[in-house]
Amino acid sequence: MKRVPEKMVERLLKYLELVKEKMSNKEHFVFSHELAERAGVSAVQVRRDLMEFDIEGTPQKGYPVEEFFSQVCGHVKCNMKTRLALVGVGNLGKAILLYFLKRRPNLKIVAAFDSDDQKTDRIYCGYKIYHISELASVAKKENINVGIITVPAEAAQETADMLVKAGIKGIVNFAPQTIKVPSDVFVEQIDITLSIEKTAYFAQKMRNRR
Amino acid sequence: MKRVPEKMVERLLKYLELVKEKMSNKEHFVFSHELAERAGVSAVQVRRDLMEFDIEGTPQKGYPVEEFFSQVCGHVKCNMKTRLALVGVGNLGKAILLYFLKRRPNLKIVAAFDSDDQKTDRIYCGYKIYHISELASVAKKENINVGIITVPAEAAQETADMLVKAGIKGIVNFAPQTIKVPSDVFVEQIDITLSIEKTAYFAQKMRNRR
Repeated sequence: MKRVPEKMVERLLKYLELVKEKMSNKEHFVFSHELAERAGVSAVQVRRDLMEFDIEGTPQKGYPVEEFFSQVCGHVKCNMKTRLALVGVGNLGKAILLYFLKRRPNLKIVAAFDSDDQKTDRIYCGYKIYHISELASVAKKENINVGIITVPAEAAQETADMLVKAGIKGIVNFAPQTIKVPSDVFVEQIDITLSIEKTAYFAQKMRNRR
Repeated sequence: MKRVPEKMVERLLKYLELVKEKMSNKEHFVFSHELAERAGVSAVQVRRDLMEFDIEGTPQKGYPVEEFFSQVCGHVKCNMKTRLALVGVGNLGKAILLYFLKRRPNLKIVAAFDSDDQKTDRIYCGYKIYHISELASVAKKENINVGIITVPAEAAQETADMLVKAGIKGIVNFAPQTIKVPSDVFVEQIDITLSIEKTAYFAQKMRNRR
């Protein structure tokens, strides 16, 4: 398996969630239809995804969870520790920091940054807030893998440039602004406002259909 | 224009953001390449999207912003007031409430709900927290269009069922759990943890390529 498509990685991560639940409930097998339901896809899609692995399941019992876990988790590195930096401690940034309190131990925000001196060199919800000028040195010292951008739209590109310069290869961008990065950096765009506006548009359409 | 695809609605909403900025800066025209950059698509895609509208632009000057705004906003109802209900006032719910403070006036969380008596009948960040049993009556009284789900995964389906029963036709689901709804309800799934895990996976791949 050379290059795994983005959507498949998402599905594998979702399957693993369920498999981990089964394991902690001391269940030994999982059916493809259960995995399908968890990921919101068809059972055919699940079986197609799992053909890439060497997990022996049966139609009667399903897939053995231990083997499923070791193979799929091994592939997507689900036990990898991700050390996150967040840039931009406004309402959105604070919201994300708050959300990550008590998160799963594999995902940890280890540093937050802002350009406003009033906000820096302080502790917020247990997070240390650094000045943005310290990004490169802290990223290196703290071994940060992924950056989260929560600055206003107009500062998003500049922030992305700084993260790239600090050697970070993965960015989750919550700013409502497309960012440009080199081809060896992965960007995931999450635009909450756009998602809600889109939902409102389709909700309105649905209502008018009545 | 009968049925507009989801991705096109997203692009039109992004174009409108830029057009509104131009208008407030007293600029009169916008180029397709500027719209393309804002939405992270090609200029060809922009021109294809705009063929559906009757906006007269020229290669020299671009599209007139006033006409662009009135036609495209008219179509996606960008001035529509969206009245949101949020269900689940844990860390994630609080994070979303915090994020929506000082949001654009067209998007407003008008009520928040929780099943925990300890949290209800209180004000949090200016939002009234109701008990979930009041959902149907408050949704009707407050004319709520869109529901936001921020409950734990295991309560997501039950919450979706309640929103549907209350007549809400659009749901933004932040719970890491696929939900089933009738075909006349639109669901947008935002899984922040999954997005970060996926980004971490690809960041790792990129790093290994060096």
